[in-house]
Amino acid sequence: MAQIKNIGVFTSGGDAPGMNAAIRAVVRTALYYDLQVTGIRRGYEGMIKGEMIPMDRKSVSNIIQRGGTILKTARSDEFRTPEGRQKAYNQLKANGVDALVGIGGDGTFTGARIFSQEFDIPIVGLPGTIDNDLQGTDFTIGYDTAINTVIDAVDKIRDTAESHDRLFIVEVMGRDSGLIALRTGIASGAEAILIPETKTNESALFERLERGRKDKSSKIVIVAEAEEAGGAFEIARQVKEKYPNYDTRVSILGHIQRGGRPSCMDRVLASRVGVAAVEALLNGQRGELIGVVNNEIAYTPFEHAIKHYVEINPNLLKIVEILSL
Amino acid sequence: MAQIKNIGVFTSGGDAPGMNAAIRAVVRTALYYDLQVTGIRRGYEGMIKGEMIPMDRKSVSNIIQRGGTILKTARSDEFRTPEGRQKAYNQLKANGVDALVGIGGDGTFTGARIFSQEFDIPIVGLPGTIDNDLQGTDFTIGYDTAINTVIDAVDKIRDTAESHDRLFIVEVMGRDSGLIALRTGIASGAEAILIPETKTNESALFERLERGRKDKSSKIVIVAEAEEAGGAFEIARQVKEKYPNYDTRVSILGHIQRGGRPSCMDRVLASRVGVAAVEALLNGQRGELIGVVNNEIAYTPFEHAIKHYVEINPNLLKIVEILSL
Amino acid sequence: MAQIKNIGVFTSGGDAPGMNAAIRAVVRTALYYDLQVTGIRRGYEGMIKGEMIPMDRKSVSNIIQRGGTILKTARSDEFRTPEGRQKAYNQLKANGVDALVGIGGDGTFTGARIFSQEFDIPIVGLPGTIDNDLQGTDFTIGYDTAINTVIDAVDKIRDTAESHDRLFIVEVMGRDSGLIALRTGIASGAEAILIPETKTNESALFERLERGRKDKSSKIVIVAEAEEAGGAFEIARQVKEKYPNYDTRVSILGHIQRGGRPSCMDRVLASRVGVAAVEALLNGQRGELIGVVNNEIAYTPFEHAIKHYVEINPNLLKIVEILSL
Amino acid sequence: MAQIKNIGVFTSGGDAPGMNAAIRAVVRTALYYDLQVTGIRRGYEGMIKGEMIPMDRKSVSNIIQRGGTILKTARSDEFRTPEGRQKAYNQLKANGVDALVGIGGDGTFTGARIFSQEFDIPIVGLPGTIDNDLQGTDFTIGYDTAINTVIDAVDKIRDTAESHDRLFIVEVMGRDSGLIALRTGIASGAEAILIPETKTNESALFERLERGRKDKSSKIVIVAEAEEAGGAFEIARQVKEKYPNYDTRVSILGHIQRGGRPSCMDRVLASRVGVAAVEALLNGQRGELIGVVNNEIAYTPFEHAIKHYVEINPNLLKIVEILSL
Repeated sequence: MAQIKNIGVFTSGGDAPGMNAAIRAVVRTALYYDLQVTGIRRGYEGMIKGEMIPMDRKSVSNIIQRGGTILKTARSDEFRTPEGRQKAYNQLKANGVDALVGIGGDGTFTGARIFSQEFDIPIVGLPGTIDNDLQGTDFTIGYDTAINTVIDAVDKIRDTAESHDRLFIVEVMGRDSGLIALRTGIASGAEAILIPETKTNESALFERLERGRKDKSSKIVIVAEAEEAGGAFEIARQVKEKYPNYDTRVSILGHIQRGGRPSCMDRVLASRVGVAAVEALLNGQRGELIGVVNNEIAYTPFEHAIKHYVEINPNLLKIVEILSL
Repeated sequence: MAQIKNIGVFTSGGDAPGMNAAIRAVVRTALYYDLQVTGIRRGYEGMIKGEMIPMDRKSVSNIIQRGGTILKTARSDEFRTPEGRQKAYNQLKANGVDALVGIGGDGTFTGARIFSQEFDIPIVGLPGTIDNDLQGTDFTIGYDTAINTVIDAVDKIRDTAESHDRLFIVEVMGRDSGLIALRTGIASGAEAILIPETKTNESALFERLERGRKDKSSKIVIVAEAEEAGGAFEIARQVKEKYPNYDTRVSILGHIQRGGRPSCMDRVLASRVGVAAVEALLNGQRGELIGVVNNEIAYTPFEHAIKHYVEINPNLLKIVEILSL
Repeated sequence: MAQIKNIGVFTSGGDAPGMNAAIRAVVRTALYYDLQVTGIRRGYEGMIKGEMIPMDRKSVSNIIQRGGTILKTARSDEFRTPEGRQKAYNQLKANGVDALVGIGGDGTFTGARIFSQEFDIPIVGLPGTIDNDLQGTDFTIGYDTAINTVIDAVDKIRDTAESHDRLFIVEVMGRDSGLIALRTGIASGAEAILIPETKTNESALFERLERGRKDKSSKIVIVAEAEEAGGAFEIARQVKEKYPNYDTRVSILGHIQRGGRPSCMDRVLASRVGVAAVEALLNGQRGELIGVVNNEIAYTPFEHAIKHYVEINPNLLKIVEILSL
Repeated sequence: MAQIKNIGVFTSGGDAPGMNAAIRAVVRTALYYDLQVTGIRRGYEGMIKGEMIPMDRKSVSNIIQRGGTILKTARSDEFRTPEGRQKAYNQLKANGVDALVGIGGDGTFTGARIFSQEFDIPIVGLPGTIDNDLQGTDFTIGYDTAINTVIDAVDKIRDTAESHDRLFIVEVMGRDSGLIALRTGIASGAEAILIPETKTNESALFERLERGRKDKSSKIVIVAEAEEAGGAFEIARQVKEKYPNYDTRVSILGHIQRGGRPSCMDRVLASRVGVAAVEALLNGQRGELIGVVNNEIAYTPFEHAIKHYVEINPNLLKIVEILSL
């Protein structure tokens, strides 16, 4: 294997707070080890189009606290084709990039896995997604910030819910995973949490409301956005039908969950895995997600990391039941 | 006129951050002047039902920083009837309440005006609504907090909009008034603001998008929720139809705009008018909204205050056009 | 007078949140009127050194929400000398700058006034300081953000004060002016406010503590940093000596008060006066501070604006006394 | 062992955000298992004085989001004496309390350990301290909130540091432990971190400043408050002496680090260990700290938990060196 001289870094998929902290860590660590760094804009799409710029210490100055990604991100249909990936490889070669650090979620690593099998270019990945739905890391970059954003919003909603004795159905992100709903439900003192991983939530919710019908104090229900169940509006429709005496409202938190200054833990996580990613590449590793498990750096082959089924800790679900008493 | 001995205080209509600061100011000022204070829960509804509690210094301790209203709020159909108002009056007499301070919006003062004409009970009002749509005060309690909540959310949305080169249509509160949209549009650097007061906004928006079609950087459009125009989803539908190459998303900020710790200015406003309300009652005034105009306390008869048409300053609209260049 | 073609913009003195929003407004408005814009870095110091860069629409993209000033700021001893000012003028001519917008406080406008008398260059000023101590504007850019930062901090301090039944002496900025202390004192529910404008505060504080000695609930005292009184530590020393049974602590809020994302009102103010500044220059005005008084743009000659004695509204002081009951 | 019927809960030592979430979890879980709950105010001091109140579901309603502790906290000299502890035990018996959950730090558990050896009363502890300096749990309740408060403040300070090209020495809490300094140093992009655990930091800092003397961009140094080194002021004194051309400032963050709404993770942690504490008592466990290690509930005897030397991960220190490049 040839010696690595120029590391390309890119963000891909949905943006997540802390991606900039990760970019900064990759760039500074590469410079620390006397490597060159190339910023690739807009993920695989920009890789195909050759949107690449050399990065230095200053390029990542004063970005650790910023939401979003200075390299921008995009989804790329073309990269799903062999021709697209060939173009991307040609652009990397033309720009002298001989190793890659990709920051994103399972789509990013699915692409990275195929790409690294087809072409001789070492790739490692950093877990950058608010959904926390990757194997190989306890937490993904952006998750901690997103759940803080959610409880900040729900605290505000509870102010008005309390003032009006209302029931709020609050929809949070998490198409395939209830992890955002689970922790924010506990932390916001929700009456109930509806997540895609369990099917029995709804009847439990109705039981709760049945018992509590006379009690007019505020209630918060957290729902993961999962489309099959119809999301918050469908739940609200059912609640209104069954329990018309509740003053029921819906709030869809939406895209605010992706933005904002990253939390301390997200910055630390991003910095740790960013440093470790460059060191792993220099160490000859490739095809791995760099995460943190039990507070230590962990390396997981892409094929395992992207099985994004993440088990819901049943103890946490039980906590909601006990505490929403 | 008999001397006032016991002031009743209540919140009514939609809750607004700073209502608690206003309650605190009314209670403490009444105590300062050796009056008794009665807290009336859930607005006119609680007044009719006799939900009244004596309040002391401690009742309002450590609430100045809390969103919502500790007295709760509600809308009351019964108070719209003469029988309802008679019941309310009887309850006030039974509880020894001989003057009222009502905190709310135009619905609150419409009710207060009729009530004070029918019964011999002095009432003054404090402007508590996030909509800022009252005459007789430069700002209403809650408006400043709400617009800060909005720009906090839009700053987060811009992070993700920038990262993906997206166009976001963000819907803010303001059914009859574009005042929240106007200032938050300026402050968030929006490309365009759509408000109910002007009819030409939409074509201006389309013109902007027409000119800017090739430019793929992020764009934010702020829309007041006004139902007739269909809100953000309808605007987004039109934009997608006309300009399919924009990656257009919708965000409805919703009820988070009502909650949260009140801003410094909202707390100061609430404290000032709360003190002035009690002093006005002691001074023999009644039937007036207590506001702040040009940084001085102002007194406006309810019938003028509730004409809630508030003119949009055309200079502010012009600013959006210039700065969104 | 020659037609203006190239406006130079700079920030000077202590930085304030919203300065970036003001820079953005000046740049975009100048471009809107087909002028060129030159950014001058580090205030008068950079003007003397010729640190000037052309600015376009992109230069001020995505900065409206950022604290600090992208143009940086500095204090300049050399500009106080005729030779320094001559150098500055030569640099402006060499860079084609034929008009100036300076954003800062009284030091900035004192310099601007002399400079505009010595050289034929139109200058207008924008009020950028957290201290709110300028004539000619109701509020300065940064003040609203700073007072929100203060109450955010004091709300946190009150959490721990309540938990421990402590008395906290909190020092806020304001060397010559108690305006930050005054509004934040009201908004944080302080027992007392000590400001340089009044001499009798301290004895009033001691009287309060004397009366309240037996009462062990939390207490907050807000002190303006004014050096002559010795600041918070000196007050705490006296309190501890006289009332050793209070568990008294000091907190100096310090430089956090200068930073942070500007509030909505600060961004709106900065945008309004930024637009008006360019329009005033085009209109032939010079030597004026552009402010907002009673919600309308106001123009005040520098010599009046810099008399920074700002009267403390006695009604606001009275409010503290009533509400801290 | 007699069956437990009435659990007493108290907070002790320095307050920490999330203590209220822990109290809520203990109370609700006890009720869930049909136990009675007694709230003991002001820690061991209140236990001695008999400040005990029965708690129900409503007592802990709407407190999960509040900083501080509704039960208040205090340090108690009297509890260090056998007589004091005897009084405390008598009060517990008189109030029917037959088991205890104490929320606090090492002082709390040192007391609890002795108390449980002298008297037949089962006690378990919850880790409530911002310092994160306990064995037996990965994180303490309050630590995550505190480090977010710190980086929020440092982000603000960096705004002004950048604007003025200044060097800021920022002092954070942590008398015996550099854990707050360590993570916030990484997350705020500090040039250097000075912590009590390592002695070589200062010379490393001076080396950095030596190399970087010509570079005038902003610099942040994070210092743990440890008294022996003299804290931030002493460091600043040395820096000013050696490198007078830096514009060096000091900021002591102080007590704001203890307050504020708890973060999502702190609320989840507090809820988890609160539930587990009651279940542990019912399970016959006693004399243990209930923590979370590697995302699972962990039980650690008090004598091990209070050895509060917590090793600093050398990899994290290395990260600062690499990234502050």
